[in-house]
Amino acid sequence: MSGRIICAGLGPGDPELISVRADRLIRRARHVAYFRKAGRTGQARRIVEGMLSPEVVEYPMEYPVTTELPVESLAYREALARFYDDWASRLIDLAHTREIVVLCEGDPFFYGSFMHLHARLQGRVEMEVIPGITGMTGCWNATGIPITWGDDVLTVLTGTMPEDDLARHMRSTDALVVMKTGRNLPKIRRALAATGRLNEAWLIEHGTMPNQRVTALSDACENECAYFAIVIVHGHGRRPESGDAS
Amino acid sequence: MSGRIICAGLGPGDPELISVRADRLIRRARHVAYFRKAGRTGQARRIVEGMLSPEVVEYPMEYPVTTELPVESLAYREALARFYDDWASRLIDLAHTREIVVLCEGDPFFYGSFMHLHARLQGRVEMEVIPGITGMTGCWNATGIPITWGDDVLTVLTGTMPEDDLARHMRSTDALVVMKTGRNLPKIRRALAATGRLNEAWLIEHGTMPNQRVTALSDACENECAYFAIVIVHGHGRRPESGDAS
Repeated sequence: MSGRIICAGLGPGDPELISVRADRLIRRARHVAYFRKAGRTGQARRIVEGMLSPEVVEYPMEYPVTTELPVESLAYREALARFYDDWASRLIDLAHTREIVVLCEGDPFFYGSFMHLHARLQGRVEMEVIPGITGMTGCWNATGIPITWGDDVLTVLTGTMPEDDLARHMRSTDALVVMKTGRNLPKIRRALAATGRLNEAWLIEHGTMPNQRVTALSDACENECAYFAIVIVHGHGRRPESGDAS
Repeated sequence: MSGRIICAGLGPGDPELISVRADRLIRRARHVAYFRKAGRTGQARRIVEGMLSPEVVEYPMEYPVTTELPVESLAYREALARFYDDWASRLIDLAHTREIVVLCEGDPFFYGSFMHLHARLQGRVEMEVIPGITGMTGCWNATGIPITWGDDVLTVLTGTMPEDDLARHMRSTDALVVMKTGRNLPKIRRALAATGRLNEAWLIEHGTMPNQRVTALSDACENECAYFAIVIVHGHGRRPESGDAS
């Protein structure tokens, strides 16, 4: 076996925010794989547009179409498990003789789809994972305001959680990030309002990308946003005015 | 005014993990500034070793020597506030005619010293902040294990917090990162033990650097570690075995 699998974290969206190492390996890659919805370009592939070698072979890993299945159903879970199983086998076969670069938005180990492959590939093939700037880091930079100061607590939640759980965690943190917003936006807004934090919250869509949009969440009238949009509440920890250096 | 200030996030330590944009601006910089302790190279400067132009002018911003002052004292805070005030004025003067690159470990907006300058510079000078891979992202990648799955909650704490607060937050989260460890390590260990999470915890020192060290925290017998070492507990959210794709 002379090949291997490299998982390249792509960062939040701006191709200039890819790491030097990932950038070099992507540009020289002969084989690249990435997740996408059937019939869509996919965010990972879009980020590297213009960077790939003309001779590259692409392996779009298209999520199974499961619109007829409820997300919580066993059938849906089984379809996805088979999808990851199949691609893991295929990548292992390819990696016998080839170096395959798997493109991953953000950081591969932070709520990433690649983790489902990683768990199946580990110990069966040589792998390298290259960290990336997380989507949330891109988003808090997009607001132009630091996220955490001094001994601020930062809590990262997912909009998929029950409303009561969201509110409970929102009450006990300083800084806050909510991932996986999308159709969960009204629920997130209600939990923020219930905990008195709605007026501090920002909605960041397409962070670091040309269509980036930063809105005070209380002004955002949409009831839905991109699934990868992120809600942020900044920390208010010890500030420079008080001369704290920690 | 034709100059500006660029704050370049350097990422967790491996220079290959600097973003393409920050890498390019650092290599072409004629003026770079960075924080360091008096008489030390400083972590930021060390990361860019070999990258700077031979003609570069360096501005080491040396923290005031305050060993005689208690960290909590007003005098210490005032000394630091003056230090940031002075460097903010100096950078503004320099930026009238020059482009100054300020080097920042990790991400500039995540518990960074740069934030204390940023608050003083904002609105008074043209600024660009380039996100970086956070130290914690480098550290969880160093463990080779994903940090968050499915709807895991991630909580970031600082070892400077009181032990009871640490334990309270540890009890209510799935994944955990503790920053600012150093001499707080015994306190962090006690809080983890009190919440039954010590056996899941990892200590990562010098993450992504040549002297990187990843230790099960229960095996780490030190009572102190580098201030920038990080403690991590991985999340156990919905896994690929259950076929979840979120």
